[in-house]
Amino acid sequence: MSIIEPQETTLYHQLAETFATAIHHGTYPSGSRLPAIRRVAGSHQVSVNTVLNAWRILEDRGLIEARPQSGYFVRGVLPSVTKASKYLAQVSSPSSEKLDLIDTVFAAQNHPDYTNISLACPQNGDFYPAAKLSRIMASMLRRQPGMIGRYALPPGSLRLRREVARRAMDSGMALVADDITLTHGCMEALQLALRALTKPGDCIGLETPTYFFLFPLLASLGLKSIEIPTDPQRGLSLDALEMLLTEKRIAALIAMPNVQNPLGCSMTLEDKKRLAELVNRYQVPLIEDGLYGELQFCTPLAPAVKAFDRDGWIIYCSSFTKTLAPDFRVGWMAAGRFSAEIARLKAVSSMSESVLLSETLGHFLESGGYDHHLRSLRRRYISQMDEARGLIARHFPQGTRATLPQGGFVFWVELPGNVDATELFHRLLQEKICVTPGALYTLSERCNSALRLSCCYPFDERYTYAIKRTGALACEMSGLSPGIS
Amino acid sequence: MSIIEPQETTLYHQLAETFATAIHHGTYPSGSRLPAIRRVAGSHQVSVNTVLNAWRILEDRGLIEARPQSGYFVRGVLPSVTKASKYLAQVSSPSSEKLDLIDTVFAAQNHPDYTNISLACPQNGDFYPAAKLSRIMASMLRRQPGMIGRYALPPGSLRLRREVARRAMDSGMALVADDITLTHGCMEALQLALRALTKPGDCIGLETPTYFFLFPLLASLGLKSIEIPTDPQRGLSLDALEMLLTEKRIAALIAMPNVQNPLGCSMTLEDKKRLAELVNRYQVPLIEDGLYGELQFCTPLAPAVKAFDRDGWIIYCSSFTKTLAPDFRVGWMAAGRFSAEIARLKAVSSMSESVLLSETLGHFLESGGYDHHLRSLRRRYISQMDEARGLIARHFPQGTRATLPQGGFVFWVELPGNVDATELFHRLLQEKICVTPGALYTLSERCNSALRLSCCYPFDERYTYAIKRTGALACEMSGLSPGIS
Repeated sequence: MSIIEPQETTLYHQLAETFATAIHHGTYPSGSRLPAIRRVAGSHQVSVNTVLNAWRILEDRGLIEARPQSGYFVRGVLPSVTKASKYLAQVSSPSSEKLDLIDTVFAAQNHPDYTNISLACPQNGDFYPAAKLSRIMASMLRRQPGMIGRYALPPGSLRLRREVARRAMDSGMALVADDITLTHGCMEALQLALRALTKPGDCIGLETPTYFFLFPLLASLGLKSIEIPTDPQRGLSLDALEMLLTEKRIAALIAMPNVQNPLGCSMTLEDKKRLAELVNRYQVPLIEDGLYGELQFCTPLAPAVKAFDRDGWIIYCSSFTKTLAPDFRVGWMAAGRFSAEIARLKAVSSMSESVLLSETLGHFLESGGYDHHLRSLRRRYISQMDEARGLIARHFPQGTRATLPQGGFVFWVELPGNVDATELFHRLLQEKICVTPGALYTLSERCNSALRLSCCYPFDERYTYAIKRTGALACEMSGLSPGIS
Repeated sequence: MSIIEPQETTLYHQLAETFATAIHHGTYPSGSRLPAIRRVAGSHQVSVNTVLNAWRILEDRGLIEARPQSGYFVRGVLPSVTKASKYLAQVSSPSSEKLDLIDTVFAAQNHPDYTNISLACPQNGDFYPAAKLSRIMASMLRRQPGMIGRYALPPGSLRLRREVARRAMDSGMALVADDITLTHGCMEALQLALRALTKPGDCIGLETPTYFFLFPLLASLGLKSIEIPTDPQRGLSLDALEMLLTEKRIAALIAMPNVQNPLGCSMTLEDKKRLAELVNRYQVPLIEDGLYGELQFCTPLAPAVKAFDRDGWIIYCSSFTKTLAPDFRVGWMAAGRFSAEIARLKAVSSMSESVLLSETLGHFLESGGYDHHLRSLRRRYISQMDEARGLIARHFPQGTRATLPQGGFVFWVELPGNVDATELFHRLLQEKICVTPGALYTLSERCNSALRLSCCYPFDERYTYAIKRTGALACEMSGLSPGIS
């Protein structure tokens, strides 16, 4: 696993990467002390400052912690999921049971009495700059009181599109305002991309496991899916993909190369370049879901695959729903060679986005507070994620494995002892606890013992209890004791 | 033409209707004086008050005006369009020229230097209660500062859905909050309805002329259309529709029974009941576009066709985009027997609507200011429409005919002398004036001499000049003099 590529970064990033890999490979187990800073500086031929910078990155990523007067220690992490799923290359449509399960899970999360520890829908108002956004909105309404009374027309706020393009540069994408189509969240961006690229009966390549709402979306468009093996640490298997592309069996591919949902992993820079090259060579459109791209834990951000898009075959989709203003549902897409078609399709599908909401985001981005906010958001999500992982380590059955996400706020947990996670879901639901079983994320049988958990909720007693209770029930079902094996 | 049905209304509504019909039929020509109030009271055996109430309705509808010390006079109206289009029953898909024309018109309206006198996109900030909506929004953000930071999940604001259901009762629809799916404007409601009801290759029945964005929307879904003759005063021809239904040639029907776009007409109560009966009998879904339903000029509002929907075959779609908050793009649909499917489709297509915007509307509706606002909005649109009609009467070629809309802010103008309205559009565009040619509203050749005009823009010198200039150019092209024939 390589989070940061040497050619893109500085010396201390390289050093951080070396130690992150060592930690993930068990060279430094949980709880162990890292070598003294001067010793590392000597053995790696770098300055003390470089080591300190590297340690800061590892701290940010929740991998190590400083203990006063004692040095730096590896935080308790769980063994990572490493097994790549078997490649089945099966063309599938979801069964009605699968769609019902998705409905049931989705309905459960809306129930005010249920404790939701699983869905990727931020409910933590404190984490977002609501006060500042409110002030911007209020001031705009004072200056342009008639704004609410004017029809919002495409292409929408130039200010926001300009800021989106400017920020996309940070992920290596050379975009200008006119390349951007604003959408009603990332979900609409995916929907429009699929409608522009496919016709009923077509096959779409998906990562496995993948974002579960893709299954009903594909079904609603008469599309079938082929699941492509996806490594919990490296992401999409490009060898498997290339096989598919050679056979011309897919009309489009959907992938999350940065911070995959539900695994939390990112592809290496090398793999991203190869992926871009493949889809351009085979002229098969890639719908790159970059929803969590700006929530990557590494800095600077690793680039998008779209950064290497030679001939415009990549449609990049993202949103501010997970990063800045969950309630606004303002998303965007940069559709390369499909731009004109996508803009037309957006207009006839839902016209445009609210100028009030778009300009509010545009002003916020212009003001320069976004990077600061993102840093603080990442820190908070890392900290909550580590806390959750700590609870899992203590309360889930021995042998439980969890991914170590490279961003965002969800992670993937594989339970030992053939625990049926769907049964676990149903039993927890009776206790008003809502988790999402692995079966949601694939049409195959291969994730039946997995769960996705999420850390975007207030980390309160209710949440803590729900995690512990999930672990206790999993222990009961597996017959295993809790604790790290 | 019967705007108000006797069984639905009171004595003075009946009287107003009698005189409206007389005016429209030329019994009382433009500029003529109505009989004295006491004489009308005597001849119709009603009280003086009843006549005064009836006159108030006719004044509200822009048909008559009081002149101090002289009595009531018929305002100058244009001869109405009465010719029903010929029934061709042709299955069509738009040509690329047609789609290009739609693109060109739609792009032109966004050009800041162009004067737009044609598109139905309110830009008159003063007409909408922006200040009150802003105050509600600000107070909500003060009380719930974290609101922006919480993910918006379906089904969305109960407050708004409850208010929508309550108001739907005024149009005769028995709905509860759970019947309502919130959407991103009416456009998304239409899109979702079509996606739920059809598969590529299906035929959709449309009014002719109809809302022009339906053509690219249908094309994007691989759907064909059959245009059904639509009378400029009575709306959809039900005899023609029944023929189609017998032949089972359409998968769904889209219609605007109240305040049709672009004609401005509404169906009679009798026709609405028959339409509801037909679609239920033949089990062919009707997508009822009620976008302008609350902008009907008659009070109380004439009911929706959905009011008579026996078995849930009618999907009612509407929005607050034309009536309350154009920028918010919050719409809704009540999908009858398709409700569960539509709710699922909305979630996987664009998830949900902003709680902030929805609750702002919900609070506004609860506060009771909406009816007052609607009354004032109708008065303003009637007054602007009448002003525009006055300009047309003076500046358009003799023989020009225009519809007398029963609500909303658009009307339909048929030019005499075989003027090619598309050529007129292109010539006006060179002078930076944007109108919409009739060819946009049908795939047939039958509206080539028509224009749609709109009164939702500030009625300033620019607008006035654009109308006059359109008339002058039409005179030049037709070789006819301006003025009422």
